[in-house]
Amino acid sequence: MSKNSKISITVIRRLPRYYRFLLQLKKEGIMRISSRELSERMGLTASQIRQDLNCFGGFGQQGYGYDVDKLYGEIGGILGLDNSYRAVLIGVGNLGKAVTTHIKFEERGFILDAMFDREQSVVGSQLQNHTIRDISTLPEYLADNTPDAAFLCLPYDSVEPIAELLYKAGVRCFWNFSHFDLTVKYGDVIMENVHLTDSLMTLCYRMNDRDESHREEK
Amino acid sequence: MSKNSKISITVIRRLPRYYRFLLQLKKEGIMRISSRELSERMGLTASQIRQDLNCFGGFGQQGYGYDVDKLYGEIGGILGLDNSYRAVLIGVGNLGKAVTTHIKFEERGFILDAMFDREQSVVGSQLQNHTIRDISTLPEYLADNTPDAAFLCLPYDSVEPIAELLYKAGVRCFWNFSHFDLTVKYGDVIMENVHLTDSLMTLCYRMNDRDESHREEK
Repeated sequence: MSKNSKISITVIRRLPRYYRFLLQLKKEGIMRISSRELSERMGLTASQIRQDLNCFGGFGQQGYGYDVDKLYGEIGGILGLDNSYRAVLIGVGNLGKAVTTHIKFEERGFILDAMFDREQSVVGSQLQNHTIRDISTLPEYLADNTPDAAFLCLPYDSVEPIAELLYKAGVRCFWNFSHFDLTVKYGDVIMENVHLTDSLMTLCYRMNDRDESHREEK
Repeated sequence: MSKNSKISITVIRRLPRYYRFLLQLKKEGIMRISSRELSERMGLTASQIRQDLNCFGGFGQQGYGYDVDKLYGEIGGILGLDNSYRAVLIGVGNLGKAVTTHIKFEERGFILDAMFDREQSVVGSQLQNHTIRDISTLPEYLADNTPDAAFLCLPYDSVEPIAELLYKAGVRCFWNFSHFDLTVKYGDVIMENVHLTDSLMTLCYRMNDRDESHREEK
């Protein structure tokens, strides 16, 4: 067991948020902050914040608050953002392009090693200092390289055979934008999903639920 | 209180996933399914599934299982996907394009009414039967229209003034891809966030945690 393995995934999933807020504080030149002030900024309770950060050893000091720079560094360390995991991106449509354009992989623990697409109109073109490769050359690439992770920016129907190739080549970590659930088929993978439509449907639910409440109140 | 208001957000957030899996079953021509079979497909426990669906009145029948078509329709109804909430999309970069291209809004409870961007190179061009409008015309649009929701596909720095405009015009529901947290400033908004970098950092954490475990085992 690693030192953090017993921390619940719910707490883990809040860490990137702390990290983002702390970066914002740094940018604003704020050097230290109390859990109360941080709670107001983040919309969490101060006790929630203390409890979360205590899970990782508690970096605050009574009467002083948190040292922004130090806490930022420490959370980054816990997240493992100083890693340089090698990743391949599969699918360079609008979504793949958005991901590579907006996200600074090097600051998030990853190095993008190669990009693949099946569209002949984009194969060979440049994006973020990479030449987009033909998806048909993925097996050759995997014969010489075992990426630490694959970013799947593909539609549902295309994922299964590609995931199979990657898995057989030893890839065990996936950042998945499709609705294809790899963990059901492969028990030993680490997968983070981004399900855009799930998020939109949740928004719809919450709006509908609010409207129903209003109707009932009348 | 609406009939579903007491259901925890954790259960709500799983509903879109059921909805997607049921659609897949429909596509495969599967008419009914037991909670055990559904659990194997979804990687949840059968008792979790029964518990979740019981929250909404329990649609299963002992010895028969779930009627796929009926359950699909009922979950869609609970999610409120038969609504036609009018939405505006702000920001038609790669991310905005990906969202509008991949997501069938009409099947998710929304109608996209207008798209705005500040880039003169895209303003006036067509996307999904919409002409992309100049962001400078947003105030005019809002004088005549109150959209039910806004989809914010903008970078952090651009969100605050736009959100202010929308909020003042009466928009209370946001689908937000930026890191700007509107709920801190406006207590009465319904907001669903998609934080891509948070998801990637969580992946990094999990990979790093696995690697640390391996090192300690040696």
